[in-house]
Amino acid sequence: MSFSLLFYLVGFLNLILAGFMILPLLVDLIYKENQSLGLLISIAITAASGLLMNLLCRGNNKRELSHREGFAIVAFAWLSATFFGSLPYLLTGSLNNFTDAWFETASGFTTTGSTILTDIEKHSHAILFWRSLTQWMGGMGIIVLSLAVLPFLGIGGMQLYKAEVPGPTADKLRPRISQTARILWEVYVFLSGVELLLLFLGGMNLYDALCHTFSTMATGGFSPKNASIEFYRNPFIEYVITFFMFMAGANFSLHYRTLKGNLKYLWQDEEFCFYISLTLVSTFIITFVIWENTPESFEKAFRLSIFQVVSILTTTGFCTADFEKWPISAQLLLLFLMFIGGCAGSTGGAIKCIRIYILLKQGFKELRQIIHPHAIIPVKLGGKIVSPDTLSGIWALFFLYLIIFVIASLFLALLGVDLLTSISAVATTLGNVGPGLGTVGPTENFAHLPAAGKWILSICMLLGRLEIYTLLVLLAPEFWRK
Amino acid sequence: MSFSLLFYLVGFLNLILAGFMILPLLVDLIYKENQSLGLLISIAITAASGLLMNLLCRGNNKRELSHREGFAIVAFAWLSATFFGSLPYLLTGSLNNFTDAWFETASGFTTTGSTILTDIEKHSHAILFWRSLTQWMGGMGIIVLSLAVLPFLGIGGMQLYKAEVPGPTADKLRPRISQTARILWEVYVFLSGVELLLLFLGGMNLYDALCHTFSTMATGGFSPKNASIEFYRNPFIEYVITFFMFMAGANFSLHYRTLKGNLKYLWQDEEFCFYISLTLVSTFIITFVIWENTPESFEKAFRLSIFQVVSILTTTGFCTADFEKWPISAQLLLLFLMFIGGCAGSTGGAIKCIRIYILLKQGFKELRQIIHPHAIIPVKLGGKIVSPDTLSGIWALFFLYLIIFVIASLFLALLGVDLLTSISAVATTLGNVGPGLGTVGPTENFAHLPAAGKWILSICMLLGRLEIYTLLVLLAPEFWRK
Repeated sequence: MSFSLLFYLVGFLNLILAGFMILPLLVDLIYKENQSLGLLISIAITAASGLLMNLLCRGNNKRELSHREGFAIVAFAWLSATFFGSLPYLLTGSLNNFTDAWFETASGFTTTGSTILTDIEKHSHAILFWRSLTQWMGGMGIIVLSLAVLPFLGIGGMQLYKAEVPGPTADKLRPRISQTARILWEVYVFLSGVELLLLFLGGMNLYDALCHTFSTMATGGFSPKNASIEFYRNPFIEYVITFFMFMAGANFSLHYRTLKGNLKYLWQDEEFCFYISLTLVSTFIITFVIWENTPESFEKAFRLSIFQVVSILTTTGFCTADFEKWPISAQLLLLFLMFIGGCAGSTGGAIKCIRIYILLKQGFKELRQIIHPHAIIPVKLGGKIVSPDTLSGIWALFFLYLIIFVIASLFLALLGVDLLTSISAVATTLGNVGPGLGTVGPTENFAHLPAAGKWILSICMLLGRLEIYTLLVLLAPEFWRK
Repeated sequence: MSFSLLFYLVGFLNLILAGFMILPLLVDLIYKENQSLGLLISIAITAASGLLMNLLCRGNNKRELSHREGFAIVAFAWLSATFFGSLPYLLTGSLNNFTDAWFETASGFTTTGSTILTDIEKHSHAILFWRSLTQWMGGMGIIVLSLAVLPFLGIGGMQLYKAEVPGPTADKLRPRISQTARILWEVYVFLSGVELLLLFLGGMNLYDALCHTFSTMATGGFSPKNASIEFYRNPFIEYVITFFMFMAGANFSLHYRTLKGNLKYLWQDEEFCFYISLTLVSTFIITFVIWENTPESFEKAFRLSIFQVVSILTTTGFCTADFEKWPISAQLLLLFLMFIGGCAGSTGGAIKCIRIYILLKQGFKELRQIIHPHAIIPVKLGGKIVSPDTLSGIWALFFLYLIIFVIASLFLALLGVDLLTSISAVATTLGNVGPGLGTVGPTENFAHLPAAGKWILSICMLLGRLEIYTLLVLLAPEFWRK
């Protein structure tokens, strides 16, 4: 393990981060809300520490990274980004304690969208802009971004890429990982541009459209409005956001292939078909439940329902209704969807559709195996046999995900949090969704939780975003042995 | 698939069932509560249908059963036993609708212990005796019992045995399955005898001691008292029942080996060590939580806590306290324990310790695999490598268990049941535990649930007891093809 290399790369990341911090500074120059000094100091500290790490640890770093270095760098990069990313909140005086600032920043970068802000709209435009921007950076991945803009990292990038990009296998679109990273960011920026335009045409002002685009494409869920998307009461905006959340929850490699002109890739992709089926079935159930039990029209029931299903399934977390007022069955379905999440290689979190789909296939495979005990029945995906190693990795991740869910919710309950809040707060942060049920519902926030609870949930967010192993390996003494 | 053989064997089972029904009849002759006629008719119907099936389907049946026939026979045997076992409730007028009678009988045979009786003590001694007796029969397994007393089944029994005995692999103590079955029943009867004696010495009358012994050794949980074990307010009885619940939740093959004189088998058995550790850790946490938050003494907190942990973990479901009044963390821990259950080859239900233990091992194996990507790290149990087929079966069962949990609780919520009740009712019936949380807590019952909900939960009980696949394969069209 070369710590020199680790600091060298984290230093670079800090410089990129400082660069992004200039954007909220520009916002403040427009809105003149006296946040510039705090932002300037944040930029200075982040950039200076980045430069320092870079200069001190400069050396013979142009080499292949080891497997373990990849994990360590990604994990430390995320912790460092969360630390430095919290400076704007603290130094502008928007938040006055580190726990809250860390929670909000972790919730941003991991694209969770859970918030400790009790009154969002009282905060300055610059800070709310930074809040949405952290989601956009975290969505496609700060490491993938570094890979794209730092081609000199060269061959070493694959280890970083594998450790950050969600999903059981990392999809390489090009032989060089920096090219793949650049393509993914290009697709991301392109889709963001289209959404921005549509939201603007739909009647949002440029600032709101930018913030919401950032949060949508990252499947983040931060909104500069207290009422989230419900604020606009505009069906066009709701459908546009539904569509782009759905896109952001699908595999970006698939978008690239589709954008290159061949729609059939979509229908040949088993994960995408599972994703769309799950969306439609859940929407159908919830539409029916709402329509049956509330005075809403069918169109409104459908619109509210598809918005919320897509928002939760893709782990975005925007709201157009207080779903805690919906019938229990709808709430329970949303709670279960929090565990599934978007597709592999998307900006969505949680366990991911492809894993659930493969697990289902294996469940049915075992059923057939029992009927035909001597037959050899492989689990296939897209016509290819899924290797036992991949299967084993999927099972283990699924199980550890549930174990962490169990332990974290027990800890929260031990702190005195009620049962539904404990369970749903952990499910929503581990899955990078945003709102939960109980006292952390769509119209509430996480501010009232005890500080220890906020730390547990912040760890859940990072564990969820980095798919558990990237953080967990750091705790194994074996990891640090020569 | 030979239906002739199926009916022939189910017919035999009915005769055994009718034989057991004589016991509550004897109880009624002692207590003289006018239940004898109803019981006599039940016996007559059950015996007559058994004889009829037996005579009509007599033929060339002494042959090896096929894999599929094993599953079909076990599944139909359980459905048939539940149907005929509900007759005493209906024909004595104790229950006046089939849904409730089916629920109570399924809850009995599957050793769940959830009840629809609102006032248990108003029912006759004979009926409450039958209720506890169904648990005792179901505990060690009605098929295992048939195997033990019907040696002419001979070599064909292994398929039945594998389909009924819980756990990833069926442990054969003797080359002949009928010998193994007899040994298991002997151990079961022996432990029951010891418990009966101790409860009697502890101050219970013979009737109560018998009923509670039946429910304890089967990890069932039915009590003839409304207040369950809390009724006695007797620490000695509580500790005795705790001990025997714990024994009933451990592997009976292990008991046999230990009773043969070698205690070291216990500590060499990884599953047993995991089981005892889980019990102690959970007891420690809950003792601490109760002691901290209630005025109870430490001894009482410990006694209540170990009783409830063992009761829930072994999936018995007896209560000495209304745990819904305990702090949330204790309730949540109990809810999670409902999914784990006892050891393989025990009378306990749910997923079973050995599966959870192997899944944990595989989770950590993957962690080491990430650190050493090229190493070959097998998952071992008792020094032996767990075969990929066994692993794959465990994973699939675990996943299907959760899927059924999700689907069944959604159905319950769709029927208008509240969230906590939906979740915990399914967890408790699927795990064959007994009490849940919400409106089906330890001092409440399942009577108020809608009829459709009772049917869903009855199916969950059977799915849980037969470890899902035995019932699920019957739904596959492939199963019925030649």
